[in-house]
Amino acid sequence: MVMSLDFDSNVFTKNIIEVADGKESVVKGGRNLFPLVHQVFSDIEQIGVIGWGSQGPAQAQNLRDTLAGSNIRVKVGLRPGSSSVEEARAVGFTEENGTLGDMMQVVAESDIVLLLISDAAQTDLYPDIFNVMKPGATLGLSHGFLLGHLTSVGDDFPDTINVIAVCPKGMGPSVRRLYVQGAEINGAGINSSFAVHQDIDGKATDYAIAWAVALGSPYCFQTTLESEYKSDIFGERGILLGAVHGIVEALYQRYKTEGMSREEAFDNTAESVTGPISRIISKEGIIAVYEHLDREGRAGFEAAYVASYTPAKEILQEIYDDVACGNEIRSVVNASNRYDRFPMGQIDGTEMWVVGEGVRAQRVEDEIPLNPTTAGVYCATMMAQIDVLLEAGHPYSEIVNESVIECVDSLNPYMHFKGISHMIDNCSNTARLGARKWASRFDYILKQQAFTALDGNQPMNWALVDNFRSHPIHNVLSVVGEMRPSVDISLS
Amino acid sequence: MVMSLDFDSNVFTKNIIEVADGKESVVKGGRNLFPLVHQVFSDIEQIGVIGWGSQGPAQAQNLRDTLAGSNIRVKVGLRPGSSSVEEARAVGFTEENGTLGDMMQVVAESDIVLLLISDAAQTDLYPDIFNVMKPGATLGLSHGFLLGHLTSVGDDFPDTINVIAVCPKGMGPSVRRLYVQGAEINGAGINSSFAVHQDIDGKATDYAIAWAVALGSPYCFQTTLESEYKSDIFGERGILLGAVHGIVEALYQRYKTEGMSREEAFDNTAESVTGPISRIISKEGIIAVYEHLDREGRAGFEAAYVASYTPAKEILQEIYDDVACGNEIRSVVNASNRYDRFPMGQIDGTEMWVVGEGVRAQRVEDEIPLNPTTAGVYCATMMAQIDVLLEAGHPYSEIVNESVIECVDSLNPYMHFKGISHMIDNCSNTARLGARKWASRFDYILKQQAFTALDGNQPMNWALVDNFRSHPIHNVLSVVGEMRPSVDISLS
Repeated sequence: MVMSLDFDSNVFTKNIIEVADGKESVVKGGRNLFPLVHQVFSDIEQIGVIGWGSQGPAQAQNLRDTLAGSNIRVKVGLRPGSSSVEEARAVGFTEENGTLGDMMQVVAESDIVLLLISDAAQTDLYPDIFNVMKPGATLGLSHGFLLGHLTSVGDDFPDTINVIAVCPKGMGPSVRRLYVQGAEINGAGINSSFAVHQDIDGKATDYAIAWAVALGSPYCFQTTLESEYKSDIFGERGILLGAVHGIVEALYQRYKTEGMSREEAFDNTAESVTGPISRIISKEGIIAVYEHLDREGRAGFEAAYVASYTPAKEILQEIYDDVACGNEIRSVVNASNRYDRFPMGQIDGTEMWVVGEGVRAQRVEDEIPLNPTTAGVYCATMMAQIDVLLEAGHPYSEIVNESVIECVDSLNPYMHFKGISHMIDNCSNTARLGARKWASRFDYILKQQAFTALDGNQPMNWALVDNFRSHPIHNVLSVVGEMRPSVDISLS
Repeated sequence: MVMSLDFDSNVFTKNIIEVADGKESVVKGGRNLFPLVHQVFSDIEQIGVIGWGSQGPAQAQNLRDTLAGSNIRVKVGLRPGSSSVEEARAVGFTEENGTLGDMMQVVAESDIVLLLISDAAQTDLYPDIFNVMKPGATLGLSHGFLLGHLTSVGDDFPDTINVIAVCPKGMGPSVRRLYVQGAEINGAGINSSFAVHQDIDGKATDYAIAWAVALGSPYCFQTTLESEYKSDIFGERGILLGAVHGIVEALYQRYKTEGMSREEAFDNTAESVTGPISRIISKEGIIAVYEHLDREGRAGFEAAYVASYTPAKEILQEIYDDVACGNEIRSVVNASNRYDRFPMGQIDGTEMWVVGEGVRAQRVEDEIPLNPTTAGVYCATMMAQIDVLLEAGHPYSEIVNESVIECVDSLNPYMHFKGISHMIDNCSNTARLGARKWASRFDYILKQQAFTALDGNQPMNWALVDNFRSHPIHNVLSVVGEMRPSVDISLS
C-alpha cells in the first residue's frame, strides 16, 4: 500500500502526475522559477549551510548562485580548525565577505539552518545545535538520518522550530555539476524529495520547495522524513552503491573463470553497467535494456534475471529490515566511533579495478558490450529493490528516484569516469560505510544461489520474467522521465 | 581488564588455573565424577530437554547416558507435529517409555528445563514458557541469546526460578560424538562455560556444574550470561565459522589467479586450514604453526600475518560492537521472520566446494600442505579475535575456547570431513545466519586491504609479529590444554 501524501503551496504550482494506480503531487523546477525562490525567502536574512562534505559544497554554491541579486546571505558554518576551510574559501565563502564562520555561530544567527554535516556528527552535536537555534527558525535536513537516530534514542526535535527536508537524489558533486549544466539546459539537475516534518508558522512547505528549486531540482516530490531515511539508507546499500559493486565483482570473477581475459571481463561487467545499460535505462527505461537485445541475448538476460531476482531480493529485504529497526543507524554510529582505530579503507586496489583503469584509458564508448547476463543480473537487482520499496509502501517517485534515476543519472557516471571508489567515496560516510558493508553480501549470494542456478543446478521460476515485462514501474519511470530534460552529466 | 569471577560448590572440587596475569576457578570433568552428578540431581525427578536442533539430541542423549541407573528421567519436549519426533524416537525417546512429550507439557512438569529450541523460537515462546514453569524450578540455557533479547525488549526472567547456563564450546554433534568417544578415553568431550544468572535456592551453581560434567565436558569455566552471548555470537561470526569461510574463499581465488590449479588452490586453503594448521594448533598451540615452518615459510607467514591482522580486526571489532549493542540479535529475529519467503540457501554449490569434494576423495592426509600464507592469514584472524575479546574483558578460558579450541577440536574437523556446509549448517540457526552474514566481509577486506599490502602496495607494521610471538595467550592455551586429554574427534 503506497502512502498517501499531499501538500499545498502558496507560491508554487502543484503538478499532478499519474503513477501506476494513483496520483502524486509534485513541483516541476527550472531556472524560470528562481524569482519565486527569492519571493519565498524574502522574509529571511541568512541561510546557514553547515558542513562541507558531499552535499555542503554543492548546496552552498547552488543556493548562492540562485539567490544572486537578493539580500539573502548564504553563509557556510564549519567547525573550528576544519580542514575544509580552504576549500570553502577557494569557491568564495570567506570570513572577509561575511559568508564563512564558526559552525555554532552560524547556526545561532541563521533563519534557515541547513544541517549538512555527517550523520555521525549530527548524532554527536544535535543537542548543542537544537540549543542555539533561534526560536522560529527553520532546520533543514538533506536526509532523515537524524530522525532515525532521535527515534532510536527516544529524543525529539524542539517544538519551537520548523523541521523540513530536501533530499537530492544524487551525491553532492552531481548536484553541483548538473546545476552548472542547467545554465545551458534549463531544468538540468538532480531530483529531490522534500518533507515537512514540523510546521510552526505555515511557511515550512514553501521553504522546502523553494530550497529544492534553488538547488536546481528538475522536479521535487513529497515524502516523510521517516520514509526518506528508510529508502535512502536502504537504496545506497542496495543498487545505488553496495549491490552494483557486489554484482560487478561477482560477474567479473565468473567471466574470468569462463575464459575471458581480465580486460574482457571488466568490459562485460563494470563497463557494461555504467555504459550501455545505464545509458539505455536513463533514456528509455529498464525494460528497454531487454528490448535492445536480440533473440539470443534476451534468452541470456531472462536466465540471468530469473536466477538473480530472488537471491538479490533476499539481501535487499534484509537491508530494509535492518534499516527499519534502527540497526543500520546504530551500525553507522558504532563505525564512526572506530574511525580512529580503523579508518575507512581503500576499495579499488584489487585486480579488477586496476585492470579497469587500463580498460577506461582505451575505452571506445560505442564498443562497450551490452552483456545480456550482466544486464539480467543488474536489472533483476534493480527490480527487486523496487519491489521491496513498493511492498513497504513508499511513494512511486521516491522509489524510481532511489532505485533507478539516481543510479543511472547521478552515480554510475562517476564509476564510469574513474571506477568504484570515485562513485562510492564521493558519497556520504553513511553511504560509504553501507556500501562497504553490503557489497560482498550480493557477491556471495549471487555466486552461491544465482550462478549455481544459471549453471543448471536449481529450478528456475520463469514467471519472474512476465512480472518484469508487465511491471507498473515502467510506466511510472516514463511519466517521471518527462519531468526533466534528458541531460548526460558531464564529468571531467 | 578481564572480569573477575568466582564460585563455590558444595560437591565439586574447584581447580585454580593460572592464566596470564591472573587465576581462574574451573572444574575438571570426567566420567569418574558421574556419581557426583547423580548426587546433585538426587532431589529432582525430571530434566526436560526442550528442542531437537543442534544441541538437543546431543544433550538429551548424554544426560540420559550419564544418569543411567538413577531415578532421574530425561524427557524430550517437542512442539506438536515437530518433524524431529521420528529422530528422537529413533534414539529411544518415545511417548511409550515416558521420555517424549509435548513441549509445553514437558516444560510444565520438569524440575530442570533445558531450553534448547532455536534462538528465534525462544524469542517467540519465552512468555508462555516462563508462564508454565513450576515455581522453584530451574531454567537451563545453552546460550545467553535469550538474555540479550530480553534486554533488547526490556523484559526479564521471572524471579521464581533459578536461571543457569551451560554452554558447550562446540556444536551439538561434536558434543555427542566426543562423549561417546569418552567411554574409551576418560575426559574426552567439549569444554563448557557455565553461568549462574539467578539462584533462588543456593543450588544453582551445583546444578550448572553437574549439567556440564554430565555432558562430558573435560573442564568447565565460569562466565556470565551476558559475557557468554557476546563472545558466542561474536565468535561464530568470526574465526569459528564466518571468518574461516571468508578467508579460504579469498585465498582460493588469490592462489588460482597466481596460477595454481583448482585442486592445488583448494589443497592450499581449506585443506591446509582444516588439516595441518588445525592439527598443530590443537596439539601444540597457535605459535607452533609458525615454528613448524622453515625460514622461507616463516617469512611468508609473517608477511601474511602482518597484512591481515588489522583488516581482520576491523571486521571483528565491527561484529563485536554489533553484537554488544543488540543489532545482531535483532537481525537474527528479523531473519527468522523472513524464512517463509527466503529460506537459508545453500553455500557449497560454488566451484570451490565442488572442487573440494574431489580433493577430499583423493586426500592423502600427510601430504596436505602447510601453506605459509594461509597459515599467516588464519592465525592473524584468530589472534585478532583473541585481542578483541581481551580488550572487551572476557575471561581467558572463554577466549581460548571461543577462538581456538572450538575451531580446531570441534568445528574445523567437520569442514575437513565434508566441506563448508557440513560445518556451518550443523550449527544453530543463529550461527548459520551469522556465518552467511559475515563470511564475505572477511573475503572483501582481505582482498582490498591485506592482499594489496602483501603485493607491496601498502606499508607493513612488523611489530605485529613481535606481539604475536610474545602474546600471553600462548601460555593460557597450554595451561587450558592440560585440562583435557588429547583426542581427535572421530567423524564418519
